[in-house]
Amino acid sequence: MAEALSDSGSANAPTIESVRESLIRQEDTIVFGLIERARFPINSPTYSASYAKIPGFTGSLAQFVAHETEALQAKAGRFTSPEENPFFPKDLPASLVPSQNHTGVLHPSAASININKSIWDFYFDKLLALFAVPGDDGNYAATAASDLVCLQALSRRIHYGKFVAEVKFKESPKEYEPAIRAKNRDALMKLLTVESVEEAVKKRVAKKAMVFGQEVTLNSTDGSNGKYKVDPSVLSRLYAEWVMPLTKLVQVEYLLRRLD
Amino acid sequence: MAEALSDSGSANAPTIESVRESLIRQEDTIVFGLIERARFPINSPTYSASYAKIPGFTGSLAQFVAHETEALQAKAGRFTSPEENPFFPKDLPASLVPSQNHTGVLHPSAASININKSIWDFYFDKLLALFAVPGDDGNYAATAASDLVCLQALSRRIHYGKFVAEVKFKESPKEYEPAIRAKNRDALMKLLTVESVEEAVKKRVAKKAMVFGQEVTLNSTDGSNGKYKVDPSVLSRLYAEWVMPLTKLVQVEYLLRRLD
Repeated sequence: MAEALSDSGSANAPTIESVRESLIRQEDTIVFGLIERARFPINSPTYSASYAKIPGFTGSLAQFVAHETEALQAKAGRFTSPEENPFFPKDLPASLVPSQNHTGVLHPSAASININKSIWDFYFDKLLALFAVPGDDGNYAATAASDLVCLQALSRRIHYGKFVAEVKFKESPKEYEPAIRAKNRDALMKLLTVESVEEAVKKRVAKKAMVFGQEVTLNSTDGSNGKYKVDPSVLSRLYAEWVMPLTKLVQVEYLLRRLD
Repeated sequence: MAEALSDSGSANAPTIESVRESLIRQEDTIVFGLIERARFPINSPTYSASYAKIPGFTGSLAQFVAHETEALQAKAGRFTSPEENPFFPKDLPASLVPSQNHTGVLHPSAASININKSIWDFYFDKLLALFAVPGDDGNYAATAASDLVCLQALSRRIHYGKFVAEVKFKESPKEYEPAIRAKNRDALMKLLTVESVEEAVKKRVAKKAMVFGQEVTLNSTDGSNGKYKVDPSVLSRLYAEWVMPLTKLVQVEYLLRRLD
């Protein structure tokens, strides 16, 4: 049972190739999530604490749904997986199901790296308005559930940087050790940045938004006429401004602890 | 705030056209859901009460996750929408958020129609093994969450038959009234069946499985080489054997109550 590699289907230790496959597969999940969230308009009351007024809970409906869903998923054992990082780690209930045998792929300090606060903030403060149309259709509960699917997919993808860093380090430890020992974040960031790869990723996620966000009809190969459910440029921007920089931040944080 | 038409984006009473658009859009949601569930193998412990042994809960992890998720979504107001039907309607908590102004599109007896038991059964007993590969990767909590996304999408689509029946009835009440008064289910089923349309739907959902389930690469238009994340024929079969017959069952049940 290799939790770390559910996406690649391999039960062995991750490789550069299996990690790459997982990252590519997770792009599909993110694009699907955004397309599904785009079914609803912004629905701003979902994000307003003054709308929700839920007895015993301070916060918006989006916060309530995320907090409560994570609590029940914690009971179901979700966060025992090193791939999953909660948005509300405080007071998370313990798992109620038999514990899994997680293969010890990552350095133990990986568990202390959680940048979901940044993910939550860019998602609600910046990203959402780029792909959800203005308006209010009253479907706040479904909207909040849909947001959480996006948030969890983004969190999983960005924190997958832990696995990316581990396989890169394993492949050429000598390349990383000096910068790690010097606690040189800039040097690590430089080692982890391959601009040509980043350009290709930006193009590929935009293409996925075109392919997955088109109107599929029986009569034509592409009935979208250039109209897509989520603007492909939003996907490029999401990856350029947030997903890739934050993944690299996770990698740097992981590498800085890798020799502890 | 027209809950009934969130997908079509219209705030007016549903029309044949807006209902048709919503049904087509919901196909995408279902295909995405199955593709996402197919990331995981079957993971059979998710469905075994003897694996879960959750204190205070009798049932499998899939049942626990669905039951608890519905409870929190009920608090968030999800089931005040006439488009949403719970799998565990017993003891569902009340909504904690301000009530929505639902446009009274449907006949009040619509609320009594809920065939989620049939949906749950065909999903777990028949459908799942058709598109999830055998195996166990230990990700049971994520698997159960993924199943619930599929179940809710299927439930929403099938119970949308209430809206389909309403617009059909409104368009030509005289055509339906004799069969309704005679409580003639067979006659109603015949009126609701248009084989050419059903054939087109089966083809379209298979095409969507090809388009959305392909491997998108930068170099080719279709890098799938005939390999898709979910076999397109499974989508045709899902619609032919379950989605369309059960939608018609909902329509018949609705029409039988329409003159009450």
